[in-house]
This record gives sequence, C-alpha cells and structure tokens, in this order.
Amino acid sequence: MAEGQLSINLATLRNGASFGEMVDACLAAGVTAIAPWRDQIASVGLAEAARIVRANGLRVTGLCRGGMFPADSAAGRQAAIDDNLKAIDEAAALNADCLVLVVGGLPGSSKDIVGARQMVSDGIAAMLPHARAANMPLAIEPLHPMYAADRACVNTIGQALDIAAQLGEGVGVAIDVYHVWWDPDLAAAVARAGREGRILAHHICDWLVPTRDMLLDRGMMGDGVIDLKSIRAMIEAAGFFGPQEVEIFSRDNWWKRPSGEVLATCVERFETVC
Amino acid sequence: MAEGQLSINLATLRNGASFGEMVDACLAAGVTAIAPWRDQIASVGLAEAARIVRANGLRVTGLCRGGMFPADSAAGRQAAIDDNLKAIDEAAALNADCLVLVVGGLPGSSKDIVGARQMVSDGIAAMLPHARAANMPLAIEPLHPMYAADRACVNTIGQALDIAAQLGEGVGVAIDVYHVWWDPDLAAAVARAGREGRILAHHICDWLVPTRDMLLDRGMMGDGVIDLKSIRAMIEAAGFFGPQEVEIFSRDNWWKRPSGEVLATCVERFETVC
Repeated sequence: MAEGQLSINLATLRNGASFGEMVDACLAAGVTAIAPWRDQIASVGLAEAARIVRANGLRVTGLCRGGMFPADSAAGRQAAIDDNLKAIDEAAALNADCLVLVVGGLPGSSKDIVGARQMVSDGIAAMLPHARAANMPLAIEPLHPMYAADRACVNTIGQALDIAAQLGEGVGVAIDVYHVWWDPDLAAAVARAGREGRILAHHICDWLVPTRDMLLDRGMMGDGVIDLKSIRAMIEAAGFFGPQEVEIFSRDNWWKRPSGEVLATCVERFETVC
Repeated sequence: MAEGQLSINLATLRNGASFGEMVDACLAAGVTAIAPWRDQIASVGLAEAARIVRANGLRVTGLCRGGMFPADSAAGRQAAIDDNLKAIDEAAALNADCLVLVVGGLPGSSKDIVGARQMVSDGIAAMLPHARAANMPLAIEPLHPMYAADRACVNTIGQALDIAAQLGEGVGVAIDVYHVWWDPDLAAAVARAGREGRILAHHICDWLVPTRDMLLDRGMMGDGVIDLKSIRAMIEAAGFFGPQEVEIFSRDNWWKRPSGEVLATCVERFETVC
C-alpha cells in the first residue's frame, strides 16, 4: 500500500463538474490535496478558489500551468512572460507547492527546435525574479517527445535539469511518469534531480497499449505498462516523498464517468499499484 | 539541391502495387535504390526478388526488418532469433547494405522495460555470429519513444550506440529523422555514431502537426516540422554520405496515391528540402 499522500490533478475530473463540486467530491473521497488548472480557478474566481482551499485545509500540489514561451515575435514572447507573471500570483494566492510549466513547442511555422529551447530558457529567466520574490518554485515539466512540436520542446528530465542548473535557484522539475517512463536514462536522471534538489512534483497515471489518442487517452494507474512502484522507488530514493498527483486526460473513458467513481478508483489504485 | 542518392523504402508505396510494379515505378522515376520489407520480398519469392534487384542494378539500402526480440518465454525468444537468422540470409541474398532491426517492446503483460532491453541485447548477441559470417551489418533503429511499449524499447541513438559498443563489430544504427528529431542530445549522438563508425542508414520523412495517428500518419519531407537539412548536415559531418531513404507510413494520404505521384513528390522534395 502506498503510504504517501494522494493528490488529484483536477484535469482528471473534466466531466463538467464545477470547481466547488470537484473539491467536494475529493473531500468525500478522503482526498485533501489537489492541483487545479487556471481555467478552473478562473471559472470560480481566484479569491473564492483560495477561500475554498483555505477553508477546507487543502494542499495545492501545483497550479497548472504556466509556460508556452516560444512565439514568432518579440511581442508574442513578452505576452507569454506577462501571462506567466500572473500565473505566479495565482499560484501564490493558492499557496501552491509550485507553478507547473509546460514550456511550449515550435512557434509558428518554425523548424528550429534549438531556437525554441532557447526561448524557453529566456522566458523562464525573465519570470524567475518574480517567482523568487513570491517564493513560488517553478516546475519545468518535461513532456513526452511526441509533444515536442506542439506542446513542449523540453522532453527529458536531464534536459530540464540542464536548464534549471543554468538558471539557478527557484526552478525544478515535475516528474510525470507518463512523459518519462520510457527514458533509458530515467534512473540516473531522477537520482540527479534529487541530488540537485530539483524534484517539485510527482505525477502519475498510466500508458495504455494501444494508445488511441496522443493527448486524451491516458490510463488509470494499473491499466497500462508503467512500472509505477519502481519509478516511485527511484523518486523516494532521490529524497522526494511528496504527494503522488493523479493526472489523467481521458476523453473517452474517465472524463465520461462521475467524479465519485473516478476518485474511488484513484484511491483504490493508489493503495494497490502505486 | 541534395546531391546524395535517394532511396525509396517500399513501405512508402503500400498502395497495393506488387514488388515488380514498385521497382518499375522507382526506375521510371529515376530511383535506383530501394529498401524492401520482408513481406514484399516473400510475395514474389526471394530468388525472383534478388534477380530483379541484380537485373536492374538496384542498390538495396536495407532490408526491413529483423528484431522483435522480447518474448515472455524462452521458446518465444528463440523463435525470434531463428527468424532473425533467416532475415540475415534474405538480406545477404539481396546484397543489402544492412538488416534493419526494430527491436520490439514489452513482452506479454510485462512492465519491465529494463528487462526487455536486456532481451534485445541478448537477441542481437545471439544472431551476431551469423550476421558477421554473412558480412551483413545489423542496424538497430531506435524508434520514437511513443513506440517504447509495443514496437521498440530502444528509443535514442545514444542507447543504440551503448548496445552496439557492448556487442562489438557488425552492429550499428539506422538514423530515422522521424524517431530522433526531438532528441536534445541529437547532435552529440550523431557525432558519436560517426566517431564510432556505426551509421548504417539515414531515413527521412517528416513529422506532421497535428499527427493524427501514432503509426500511420508520417509526412512527406517538407510538410512537417523536421529540419531535414540540419540533420543531414549532422550526419554528413559525422562521415556518412549514404543514400537518404524515404520511409513514409501514410494510410490516409500517400498510400492512397499512385506510385508515380508519390515518387515524383519524393524526388522533388529530395531535391528541394532535404
């Protein structure tokens, strides 16, 4: 049985429920840690969302998401940075453990992935002073390489750590098993992340075979091929014992089910296969 | 304009044409290098296929494919090795530049990707004496990480080179831009592959945005986001000037078109964007 804390990324409950309904469902399932998305916070208002979080003693394991830095104009890149500064304030208002960064892919019709990666480093550098002042850690989330073109050109833990090392304090990584389970350097990269004090979040779900949609067909823990216990052991050996945050995008399965059923399954799987 | 040789992987022409028809279409388009698949060879018979290759002075840039080593029983792993020994003989009969290995994913219901990778190393080791005796290089093709579970648990050039280094002479890598373009270590890995004398093939196509199918929606060169000229420059700087082999799996687009149209497009794009 998993002894750590379970957190629910509220993208797992995109079944039409409101923020308040999702929180109620989590509490009813005994879940006291959440990770909301900015649209979910905006739908109820930041102040009200923060009040709900405080009133219920919820831990916010991350706010999703900042990032999306590359753009094909300087104005576009500045607009992204401005939006990221707001995201820092929102994360701070929610007392989140970190602001998760999905860094963005190739801008416009660009084929220059090296250039896009530079835009990412530059963007994080530009928002970092404000993040440090707000005491809000920035968690670079390397995404699976299948998203390199359109969502995130940071695709391995090692690459994220290289960026963090360049930028200094206040930047770390969110390790999502879905994105990194295949990495032949996974064990070494997780160990390095621990040594460097950069692990900020641990996301879980599963990789289904077959995967029918590149974005919206993630699996419930235990339904796929990821060795969740092994990866958890790596992360704990690296010194991170924070909550495991369930994040499942599942348009045709879990998003069609009531929150109570989804959460009961998350709790049961967390206790048995994570 | 690309000055090297163009080769056509015959998976690009899976429109119902026979092997002979595909060869005729290639010759009509001025293409004198091909890479057939074993089912295509079997459909006409190995001896007849070899005769067609010789009679037309065709270069065979690779035979697709060996591999698929992991299995959940010793008998299954031996059956895979036996089949790979036959594939070596077929490649030799065709005077192919190499036998391409798509190494296989997780066997059965396994979640042990480290174990699967060991099965791959063991399988290649078992077939290597016969390959060396036949003077047939084995080209490990790292596949994109999105295939780690079900097609190939070797997912980066660096990982393939580590396996090759362990096994010694007679093993190299097939570098397919579709599988490796995202790799943050690409330049270093290609340079290493050259230094170690391991580059056996250079496959091209493109990554479409969006990609609508994880297996069968590869793009024609120039229609996606891969910087083909940059990767070609890396490969040539590493000392490989062999043919660029077009391999496009495209169920809903190119596979629906006549061979002549597909080949004319390959030739034109090869001259302009590769």
